[in-house]
Amino acid sequence: MFKKENLKKLQEALKSDELKAYLIVTSDPHNSEYIASHFKAFREYFCPFTGSAGQLLVTQNAAYLFADGRYWIQAENELKDSGITLIKVGDKNVPSIYKFIRQNELTPLGCDLSMITRDELETFRKKNVNIIDKDYSYLIENRPELPLNKVWKLREDLYTLSYKEKIDLIIKELEKEGAEANLITPLDEIAYILNLRGNDIPCNPVFYSYLYLSRKNGNHLFINKKKIDFELEGIEIHEYEDILPFMKKHRDIRTLVDPTRVNARLFHLIYGSVRAKNPSYLMKAIKGEKEIENTKRIQALDGLALVKFKKYLRENLKNNLTEYDYAKKLEEFRRESKDLYELSFETIAAVGSNGAQMHYEPTKEKSSVVSDKEIELLVDSGGQYYGGTTDTTRTFLIGEATPEFKHDYTLTLKAVIAVSDAVFIDGSDGHTLDIKARQFMRDEGMDYKCGTGHGVGYMLNVHEGPNGLRYKKVPERDDQAPIVPGMITTIEPGVYKEGKYGIRIENNLLCVPAFETEMGVFYKFETITYVPIDVEAINIDELTDKEIEWLNNYHEEVYKKLAPLTKDKELIDFLRNQTRKIFR
Amino acid sequence: MFKKENLKKLQEALKSDELKAYLIVTSDPHNSEYIASHFKAFREYFCPFTGSAGQLLVTQNAAYLFADGRYWIQAENELKDSGITLIKVGDKNVPSIYKFIRQNELTPLGCDLSMITRDELETFRKKNVNIIDKDYSYLIENRPELPLNKVWKLREDLYTLSYKEKIDLIIKELEKEGAEANLITPLDEIAYILNLRGNDIPCNPVFYSYLYLSRKNGNHLFINKKKIDFELEGIEIHEYEDILPFMKKHRDIRTLVDPTRVNARLFHLIYGSVRAKNPSYLMKAIKGEKEIENTKRIQALDGLALVKFKKYLRENLKNNLTEYDYAKKLEEFRRESKDLYELSFETIAAVGSNGAQMHYEPTKEKSSVVSDKEIELLVDSGGQYYGGTTDTTRTFLIGEATPEFKHDYTLTLKAVIAVSDAVFIDGSDGHTLDIKARQFMRDEGMDYKCGTGHGVGYMLNVHEGPNGLRYKKVPERDDQAPIVPGMITTIEPGVYKEGKYGIRIENNLLCVPAFETEMGVFYKFETITYVPIDVEAINIDELTDKEIEWLNNYHEEVYKKLAPLTKDKELIDFLRNQTRKIFR
Repeated sequence: MFKKENLKKLQEALKSDELKAYLIVTSDPHNSEYIASHFKAFREYFCPFTGSAGQLLVTQNAAYLFADGRYWIQAENELKDSGITLIKVGDKNVPSIYKFIRQNELTPLGCDLSMITRDELETFRKKNVNIIDKDYSYLIENRPELPLNKVWKLREDLYTLSYKEKIDLIIKELEKEGAEANLITPLDEIAYILNLRGNDIPCNPVFYSYLYLSRKNGNHLFINKKKIDFELEGIEIHEYEDILPFMKKHRDIRTLVDPTRVNARLFHLIYGSVRAKNPSYLMKAIKGEKEIENTKRIQALDGLALVKFKKYLRENLKNNLTEYDYAKKLEEFRRESKDLYELSFETIAAVGSNGAQMHYEPTKEKSSVVSDKEIELLVDSGGQYYGGTTDTTRTFLIGEATPEFKHDYTLTLKAVIAVSDAVFIDGSDGHTLDIKARQFMRDEGMDYKCGTGHGVGYMLNVHEGPNGLRYKKVPERDDQAPIVPGMITTIEPGVYKEGKYGIRIENNLLCVPAFETEMGVFYKFETITYVPIDVEAINIDELTDKEIEWLNNYHEEVYKKLAPLTKDKELIDFLRNQTRKIFR
Repeated sequence: MFKKENLKKLQEALKSDELKAYLIVTSDPHNSEYIASHFKAFREYFCPFTGSAGQLLVTQNAAYLFADGRYWIQAENELKDSGITLIKVGDKNVPSIYKFIRQNELTPLGCDLSMITRDELETFRKKNVNIIDKDYSYLIENRPELPLNKVWKLREDLYTLSYKEKIDLIIKELEKEGAEANLITPLDEIAYILNLRGNDIPCNPVFYSYLYLSRKNGNHLFINKKKIDFELEGIEIHEYEDILPFMKKHRDIRTLVDPTRVNARLFHLIYGSVRAKNPSYLMKAIKGEKEIENTKRIQALDGLALVKFKKYLRENLKNNLTEYDYAKKLEEFRRESKDLYELSFETIAAVGSNGAQMHYEPTKEKSSVVSDKEIELLVDSGGQYYGGTTDTTRTFLIGEATPEFKHDYTLTLKAVIAVSDAVFIDGSDGHTLDIKARQFMRDEGMDYKCGTGHGVGYMLNVHEGPNGLRYKKVPERDDQAPIVPGMITTIEPGVYKEGKYGIRIENNLLCVPAFETEMGVFYKFETITYVPIDVEAINIDELTDKEIEWLNNYHEEVYKKLAPLTKDKELIDFLRNQTRKIFR
C-alpha cells in the first residue's frame, strides 16, 4: 500500500545511485494486458492510483503519473495529497513522456527493463532517451507473492493438435526463419502450445512461465515447480527464475524472439536473436476444427444465458435492481452451464447515460438503478468456457426509444451487418475492413473512439492478436495481420452520446472461405454469437432489403441454435418472439 | 554494357577479398524510385537485364537476378546465355533473398551500403544476414557520369512558402523531436524545401544533392557546384561528395534522419541519430494555397489536352495508327500548353487485351494498331507543368462494348465514386479507405493487383508519400499517414482480364474539410481531374441514383472548367456532348 515514505525511500535510492529519475510501468515480464497483483504492487507501492494502466515517473524530488483520458477523473481523486502530479496524456499541449524526460533532463533514467519490451525500449532510444536497467522492487514491503495456482491440462476433446504436434510445427517455422530456438514469453502463447491452462490472472486462464523450444537444445518450461503436478514428455521443467541463467548460457544460439513482446532484459541477454513474431502468435489465432466446433457449442450456451437474462430484465424493471445486481444475475445464468470456467472479463452493465462511458463498470458500491424511465441497458460480457471464450454486447431497450435513439441503434446495426457480410481477398487485414462499419456514422459526423473489433482467444485472453478491426495503428494491440479462415474477431461498433445513452452491438465473427477465382482466394465471415438483437429499437425504413434479409436470417439461426438447449416452454416462446421476422 | 568478363572481374575481386557474395541493388544513394543512368549502370555492367527493379546477387562462381513477376518474361529473354540465373521472387516455393543467402551460406556478403537504406540493412540483420560495406563500382568501365544538368528556381507565383519559411518550420519541428539538425537525403524533399527544380532523372524534376539544416551549425547544400549558377542566402554550398566528411565531422550532433530513406553508409556515420520521418516528408504532401490554385489551373489545361486527344482518337480509328502514335499525339496536345515542362511518366496506351497488362508501355518498335475492332484504348498519362503534376487514366470506348465490359466498366466507376464521395475522420489513412473502392469487385470474386491510389507531387515525383490508398503495406511506398486537407491522392481502381481487356479510371483527389462536430473533425475529397468519363461504356441500371447524380455533377464541373479554355467551336461541342447528363 502507498505511503508517502515509500516514495521518499525510492527518491533516496535515486540520489545515492545518481539516477535523475525512475520509471515504473504497469506491466509484467510477459507484456500481459492484465497482470497479477504481485506486479501491480510495484507501481501501487509508490503511487495511490489503482487504474489498470499508467506510467509513474519518479524524480529525486517529485513524481508524475502519466495516464490517458480513461483515467483522468479516477487519478485526480486518488492522487489527492499524494504529492504526485497527474500528466494527462493525450490532452492538448501535454508533452509525450519522451519529450518530458528530455525537457527536464531526467537522464540517466532507471527502469526495471524486465517490465518493458524490447521494442518499447527501442522507442525510448529512437526518441533519444537512454534507460539504465535498475530493479528497485526490493524496496517494496509486503508485496503480494507471485501466484501459486495449479496448472491444469485441457480436456483432450477440446483441442485439435497435441502439444507435441504444435512444437513440431513451430520448430519447422523456426528453420524457415533461420533460427535454432524460440523463446516464448507471452503467457497465452505458452498455454496454447502446451494445451494447459492456469489461473494466475483473473479472467485470463494463463500461468506465469517461459517456454524455450529447440530441436538441438531440447524444450524447456520455466515455471514455479509447485504449480505443476505432472510431467510433460519431451519438456524439461525448470524454476521460473532460472530463465535468466539459462538464456545467458544459450546466448549464442540463434533464438527467435518477438521484439514486441519479449522483455528488454531478457532480449539483451541473447546475442543471436532473430527478431520476428513467434510462430505461435499466428497459430493460436487460427482455430482448428475442434476449437471451432467447441466454440460454436459454447457460444450457444452463452447465448441461452443472455436470452434468460433478457427475459429476467424485462420482468424486473419495476423492482429497483441495480446494474450490479443485473451483472451478478447474468453471471448466475452463465454459471447454470457446467461448461463455464469463469467470466472472460468483468461485466459492463450500464443504464441510460452511463452507457456513453465506454469503460463503465458497476461495482457493489457504485451502481445505478435500472428502470424503464431509461431508454436502454448496455451489457458487454463474456465467459471462459471449457470450449472457448465469448464476448458479446447487446443494448437492451428497456424504456421508450426516441427517434434519435432508434436512428443511432439502426446505424449501429447497419455497421454490424456491413462487416458481417463483407467479402475480402486473402491478404486483407481488419484495418482495411474497419471503414465498412464506420462509414454510416461518419457520413453524419459521428464516430466511436475505440477499435471496431479484436481477436478472441480460445479459453484464453478475450483480447488477442494478430487479428483485429481498427483504422488506427495501436502498436500494443499488434493486430494488423491478414484475417484468414479460423480466426475469430469481434465486430462492435457503437454510438455514444454523452449525457444521453450508449449503444453497442457486438458479435463474434469466424472467418471462413468464400470462393476462389482466377483473380484470387476470397474469404467471408460467419457470425457465431447467437443472441437476439432488439428489433423494437430498429427504424426499419433505414434498412435496405438486403439488411432486413440478413437480420431475419440471423434470427432464424439464433432460434435454431438456442431452442434445442432448453425445455422451458416459456423461455422458448420468449426466444421465438425475440427472433421473429421483421417486415417493412 | 554487360560482358561476361565483367562478372568474372567481380568474382575475382570477391575471391581476393574473401567475400562469399556481393549484392547489387537497383537504387541510388537517395532511395529514389527512378534513378539516373549513372546508378543504373552499376547493375547493368554486371548483368544484361534492363528492367527498373531487381537485385543481382553475385557469388564467387555464379550469379542470380532476383526479380518480381512484372519482369519475369523480360528477364528470361535478357539473361539468355549470360550465365545468370533468374530467381522469380513471389513464385511458389521461391525463397526470399534472405533465406537464399542463409541456405547457401553466402556470408560474409558485400554490398555498397550507400545503395540501401538504413531500414533495409536492418531487415537483413533481423533476418540474420550480415552485410559488409564494399564498393566495387571502380570495376565499371565507361560508366555514365553523374548528371550535370542545371538547377533552376521555381517561379515565385508557384509556391506558398519561401525556402526560408520552410526551413524555419522544419527547425521548429526538429526541436520538438529533440534533434539539433536534419540531414535530408530524398531528392524531392530537397527540391520542395528549396523551391528549386532540376532535370537529373527523366520525368522527375529533381537534382542530386543532400541538404543539412541546423540552427546551430547552419544550413548546407551538397551538390556539384557546376549545376548551380546562383547563391542561396543562408545556405552554404558544398560539393556533392563532401557530405561524407561533413557528416563525419558532425557525427555527435543529434541529427534527425529518416531511417527508411537515408542510405546505410551515411546513417552509420552519425552517432547521435534521431530516427524519425523528415518534417519535409509530410510538409511537401500538404499543398499550400498557391500550390492548390495552380494545380487546379494546370489540371484543366491537362484535361483539355485529353479532350482534344479523345476527339482525335474518335476521328482516326480507321487510320491504322498505333498505340505509340497515339501516345506521341497526346504528348503533342499537352505540349500545346506553354505551361508543360515534361511528361510526369512514360505514357501507357494499351489497346484491347494489352490493357490487361498493368505495366504495358508501347515503344516505337513494339506497339499495336488501334482500331474499332477492339473494345477499348486504356491511356494512363500525365504531365509536369509549371504549376503541378498530373496523372490521369481514361479507358476510351473505341469499338463495341460487350455486356461484360460494360458491367466491369460500371464497377470501376462505382469504385471511383465510392472513394471520391467518402467522408472520413481526422486520423484516417488511405489504407482504411481502400476497401471502399474494392468492395464492388470483391463481391464478385475480382480484384486488381495494385494499390488503389498514391500521393502526387507538385511539379515533383508523380508518386509520393506519405499518403496513398492501398490495403497491403508496401514499406518502400511508406504511404500510411493520415490523409489531411491539402494532400492530393489518385483513385485508380480497375478490372484487368487477361486476353480480353483492361479497364482503369484514374482521378486525382484533393482532400478538403467536410465538417466538425463534437465527435470529431471530418474530411472529404474534391476531384481535381477534369476529363470526361465514357458514358457509352456504362450500364446505367447498375448505378444508384446517388452515383448518377455524382457523375452528372462531375461532368458539369468538367465542362465549366474546360470550355472557357478554348475557342474551338467544334471542340466545345464535342466536350458538351462528352459531358452530357445521363438519365435512367
